[in-house]
Amino acid sequence: MNENSVGLVRRQYFTFAEPPNEMPLESGEKLGPITLAYETYGSLNREKNNAILIAHALSGDSHAAGYYSADERKRGWWDFMIGPGRSIDTNKYFVICSNALAGCQGSTGPSSLNPTGKRYNLSFPVITIGDMVRAQTHLIDALGIKRLLSVIGGSMGGMQALEWAVEFPDRIASCVPHATTTRLNAQGIAFDEVGRQAIFADPDWRNGNYLDEGVIPEKGLAVARMLAHITYLSEESMHQKFGRRLREKERYGYDFSLDFEVESYLRHQGSSFVQRFDANTYLYITKAIDYFDLKQNYGSLEEAFRHVTAKVLVFSFTSDWLFPTSQNREIVQALQVHRKPVSFVELDSPYGHDSFLIPNAKQEKLVSDFLRTVYDDQMNK
Amino acid sequence: MNENSVGLVRRQYFTFAEPPNEMPLESGEKLGPITLAYETYGSLNREKNNAILIAHALSGDSHAAGYYSADERKRGWWDFMIGPGRSIDTNKYFVICSNALAGCQGSTGPSSLNPTGKRYNLSFPVITIGDMVRAQTHLIDALGIKRLLSVIGGSMGGMQALEWAVEFPDRIASCVPHATTTRLNAQGIAFDEVGRQAIFADPDWRNGNYLDEGVIPEKGLAVARMLAHITYLSEESMHQKFGRRLREKERYGYDFSLDFEVESYLRHQGSSFVQRFDANTYLYITKAIDYFDLKQNYGSLEEAFRHVTAKVLVFSFTSDWLFPTSQNREIVQALQVHRKPVSFVELDSPYGHDSFLIPNAKQEKLVSDFLRTVYDDQMNK
Repeated sequence: MNENSVGLVRRQYFTFAEPPNEMPLESGEKLGPITLAYETYGSLNREKNNAILIAHALSGDSHAAGYYSADERKRGWWDFMIGPGRSIDTNKYFVICSNALAGCQGSTGPSSLNPTGKRYNLSFPVITIGDMVRAQTHLIDALGIKRLLSVIGGSMGGMQALEWAVEFPDRIASCVPHATTTRLNAQGIAFDEVGRQAIFADPDWRNGNYLDEGVIPEKGLAVARMLAHITYLSEESMHQKFGRRLREKERYGYDFSLDFEVESYLRHQGSSFVQRFDANTYLYITKAIDYFDLKQNYGSLEEAFRHVTAKVLVFSFTSDWLFPTSQNREIVQALQVHRKPVSFVELDSPYGHDSFLIPNAKQEKLVSDFLRTVYDDQMNK
Repeated sequence: MNENSVGLVRRQYFTFAEPPNEMPLESGEKLGPITLAYETYGSLNREKNNAILIAHALSGDSHAAGYYSADERKRGWWDFMIGPGRSIDTNKYFVICSNALAGCQGSTGPSSLNPTGKRYNLSFPVITIGDMVRAQTHLIDALGIKRLLSVIGGSMGGMQALEWAVEFPDRIASCVPHATTTRLNAQGIAFDEVGRQAIFADPDWRNGNYLDEGVIPEKGLAVARMLAHITYLSEESMHQKFGRRLREKERYGYDFSLDFEVESYLRHQGSSFVQRFDANTYLYITKAIDYFDLKQNYGSLEEAFRHVTAKVLVFSFTSDWLFPTSQNREIVQALQVHRKPVSFVELDSPYGHDSFLIPNAKQEKLVSDFLRTVYDDQMNK
């Protein structure tokens, strides 16, 4: 096994309930009790000031690093970033990653049972990025951590990192959003909406009650995933990876079976996704992403960032057309208005939005250096 | 009524059959008899050398200009370009536009009846851009036209214009492809494939036999259209048109009904499309687009263009990310290798791929001037 891996890990569960057993949501609704599935890597130090929260993207989960069994080859989704001696060094830091509220990998979501023992389905309230973060604060409380060294994440994870910085300035020393935005543009909302419509269009969705009726809207969810997957890649990386190469044939088939490699790849992305992801969670999480809007919530980005105290390191990627550099730069510029300590790095990468999930020596080094500085600053205070 | 309009027009039909009653296709299959729906505007001159063929895009039809009844407000899809005194001047030129082979607006396609009186459905052969063009040559023959003054079209229409230039160099004096490519890249194929999968996923598609079974795969086709529509617009134009504006509400609905204007717009695009377009035609036409590959057919673009004699004017649009300027420029560069007469104009437009369908004074002027030059050159020969 790789010597830098955190090794064998296990999923843990934390259940909480604010009195009276419910957490208030941004919508005005309440939800509870709430369970968050989470994992930790490394050890919390005596001062409890070495904790880093990792926030996952739309289709991620709590399994950010390591493996669940010794014979399993698959690693957590950010394994290359997290481990002993790695960028987020588990010899030094205590790393926490929880499945987001409304998720489908152990946290309370639409497929969970409500307090009366029935599945929520569409009676699950629409939640926001703010609600996700609020739920995380309960987990952090329970772990006895007053202040996180950092919140780090890409895409929706980056939104959560920003939300932490804005809403809980006293509770984080730094944050590192990757490939994210303070608000989706119309095109981003449009892609999410088409994905939702693909799920709604599947008669096996059964108005959200599919699990109770023993079916799964596989086709609709697969179409949603295929579409989204295109937006995570760049035109350049798709060209390099697939071009117009045919799949196991010398000439066109002149039928609708399968011609191009890229078609085969997308179909595989769709069909494997439905094995591991819940369609209703897809609806709720995309809605939370669409609703995220720091500008709207505070009147302006500058106002949103007024009370931020965290040191911020923003990463964007040259080929990311979903959350392009310009959107990441807005974060930096709004923080600079207040002379907040912010660094910005646009990394040269051909892999599109998914670049943050792909090993990149520069990204790893910069995150490592940044965390060391934040950690040392804290020690010297 | 607008004085520059071609006015009242009607759809005509032309049926042909190569002996023995079938046209050979690129696939090796045969098809026939074939009917093309078409319209003409202006008059063919005595020398029969003032004819211009307009080729439509994926969702277009033969109705390029004018209106079908005096009380109808809707005009043909390129009405602003075609008419007396307009860019493609019907006082001077005889303009023809036919619904593509495999189309669903009067031309023979999967929803047509085969010679035994049954609907083709999926027994319709997979056709190519080359087959579409070959069918058009029969129409041009029947109209007594030996040589077209020009073939003009955008997107898939531009592919047809290029195919004419490459395959029938003696039969066209010029061509004007807009916003097109000589071959889709992997991303373009991927978007088409997701659209097809959305149709396949609809149980009302019935393996292509929906019309015989009295249903329509409305939801699947709507999802395909919504997705495609995003790729026709630019991020910038969507931002300007919709931004994050809510639809008839002050705050988020916290449900899945409808929040954003852009969602409402897309749903409308989807639901109105299914009223006028056939799902199987969508499958066949996207496949023809995916298969188009001048480079593959000839070994290289330079080889493909070796025998071109047409004067070529290529238009691209700055905000078109589906068939970006770089792909249009490849056409120009390959023609320049042979010192062919080619002009290239990248028009500044925020409207994305659909820019060619939106009035643009510069485009109109340049097409008008180009056609006049080609016409005068021909007269002086």
